[in-house]
Amino acid sequence: MIPQPSAMAMVPFVSVQDMMTLVNKIGIAQMIADIADEIEADYRRWPQFDKTPRVPAHSAEGVIELMPTSDGETYGFKYVNGHPANMARGFQTVTAFGVLARVDTGYPILLSEMTVLTALRTAATSVMAARHLAPKTARTMAMIGNGAQCEFQALGFQKVIGIDTVRLFDIDPAATAKAAKNLQGSGLTVVKCKTAEDAVTGADIITTCTADKQYATVLTDNMVGAGQHINAIGGDCPGKTELHRDILLRSDIFVEYPPQTRIEGEIQALDPDHPVTELWQVICGDAPGRTDSRQITLFDSVGFATEDFSALRYVHRQLRDNGTYQDLDMIADPDDPRDLFGMVRRAAPN
Amino acid sequence: MIPQPSAMAMVPFVSVQDMMTLVNKIGIAQMIADIADEIEADYRRWPQFDKTPRVPAHSAEGVIELMPTSDGETYGFKYVNGHPANMARGFQTVTAFGVLARVDTGYPILLSEMTVLTALRTAATSVMAARHLAPKTARTMAMIGNGAQCEFQALGFQKVIGIDTVRLFDIDPAATAKAAKNLQGSGLTVVKCKTAEDAVTGADIITTCTADKQYATVLTDNMVGAGQHINAIGGDCPGKTELHRDILLRSDIFVEYPPQTRIEGEIQALDPDHPVTELWQVICGDAPGRTDSRQITLFDSVGFATEDFSALRYVHRQLRDNGTYQDLDMIADPDDPRDLFGMVRRAAPN
Repeated sequence: MIPQPSAMAMVPFVSVQDMMTLVNKIGIAQMIADIADEIEADYRRWPQFDKTPRVPAHSAEGVIELMPTSDGETYGFKYVNGHPANMARGFQTVTAFGVLARVDTGYPILLSEMTVLTALRTAATSVMAARHLAPKTARTMAMIGNGAQCEFQALGFQKVIGIDTVRLFDIDPAATAKAAKNLQGSGLTVVKCKTAEDAVTGADIITTCTADKQYATVLTDNMVGAGQHINAIGGDCPGKTELHRDILLRSDIFVEYPPQTRIEGEIQALDPDHPVTELWQVICGDAPGRTDSRQITLFDSVGFATEDFSALRYVHRQLRDNGTYQDLDMIADPDDPRDLFGMVRRAAPN
Repeated sequence: MIPQPSAMAMVPFVSVQDMMTLVNKIGIAQMIADIADEIEADYRRWPQFDKTPRVPAHSAEGVIELMPTSDGETYGFKYVNGHPANMARGFQTVTAFGVLARVDTGYPILLSEMTVLTALRTAATSVMAARHLAPKTARTMAMIGNGAQCEFQALGFQKVIGIDTVRLFDIDPAATAKAAKNLQGSGLTVVKCKTAEDAVTGADIITTCTADKQYATVLTDNMVGAGQHINAIGGDCPGKTELHRDILLRSDIFVEYPPQTRIEGEIQALDPDHPVTELWQVICGDAPGRTDSRQITLFDSVGFATEDFSALRYVHRQLRDNGTYQDLDMIADPDDPRDLFGMVRRAAPN
């Protein structure tokens, strides 16, 4: 008889299909809003987290990264890749999965797909930051880069910030057409633009979300005007930026975790001591966010481990009531913890 | 209709049960020997690997670590915890799982349990090092610490090094009794010892494998004599060592990856510039291993990411012919890679 694993040895696994079922049950925009609240709650207790820049493995084709963090009770990490050339080969640019574990025992308690979840948490982080930095009257958002992240951003900003119009531009018109089609029926007014200059016209918020792994300038200085909020999410590794340096020099810059953003964010183009404000300090009321209607605010977002932690904890809490998942036999659990050898040998067929 | 994930979106998962089935099919000692060859082959191409000290999250109860590496073609990482207090609570001290991925696309190609596999790869690394460092005539091994790793070490040294006698000691006689019972029928002469001093008497090789997360001295200076090889595997994090400092000063010390071993190994008790030899250089013939029969050699082993990489690749190769596994729907794979949103929405029930 083959011994069966105990409950302790099982780890709940949320597959892509399970995640899509959960997202559709809650609703895409609602889940982005929920995760934004979760992320904000964790930013409010920022000092409690173990923080480290993510650990990258760079190659010619892209990067694979591990993003760990812990709040002392729960540990989490995400595995994520970024391969700009994948799209042309029919693969996702970004795929991801994540794990939560108990700090006291080290045992994993959740394994989850995070390709879909990262799309939601990235939009959630953007709207959470915009809640503190964008003009309160913002109704129009320009979106430069209409790839896999675009619609999640649009619906998140509609739900949480009150955006009613998105102005789309992508160097590939097929991407814009795809996004516009997906946003039909959302209630958003969708304007397809032929140039980036056209897209930013009249925009209160500019979201840049392109994927080239090279220095690119998707926004030039003349395209940014007084009072705008820039949500820059496409620049996220060394050598990958989206904004002209002059824009940075005119903006008040807000970042997630400076030691990581200095390496990966738009501010890699600036001096290493150029002043930036940590977003968590704004959220805690320790630093000013937007103070004036003519100020240009820039959220130089690269994605940080605590945001994935927040999203994973949200998913974990949904498992009992809303979630579909599968238990994986991932942890060896001998009756006598010292007798791993005996467990292996007893599993042999007679 | 719910769309089904494509083959590209599936990742083979080797559960604990699958791993035990594989180990028993190949045989425990044979699999340790196979993995030792695999690890040695990767040590021979050491400069090809991206190497970094593992990334730890320390807590009062233990540590959770991520151990990534890449050979430029394949990326791998292991999640592993070390919680010395777990045993008393009925949990494993060490549990682990690991992942392999393609560097060119960033897509995972294997998820595997590694609690069992780590036990095998740790023994495999020890015997691989001993092949280069232990006296050729070694027949007797002292084993101090008779926990979960003990029997794997014993069988590995029997198979690869030709050990015929093991002398066991543990501060808990129940652990020694467990190991002795498990080694019945192995062909090894097993001697249960009442003290560590007794265990090392006449031993050619001393393996220390205890788990306390504190400075411990399981070997004192008078217990080590000329010509012995010490296989020290229990000290593996800051503040966790097993050997008296004077032993280190009399030994020629061999390590896996100095930047990690300086932090975690026995040599944390020495000056940061104390000379050590990198094991890969011995294996490549660039540095001497054992040169004289009276020399004391010390393998200050903490476990390195390439060893897990080698073990995971071995398992991955077995999947086609020998392995049982399950495909996991872990990677989102929309028809149009930019249309993640559309994929999620199309999965909604009508």
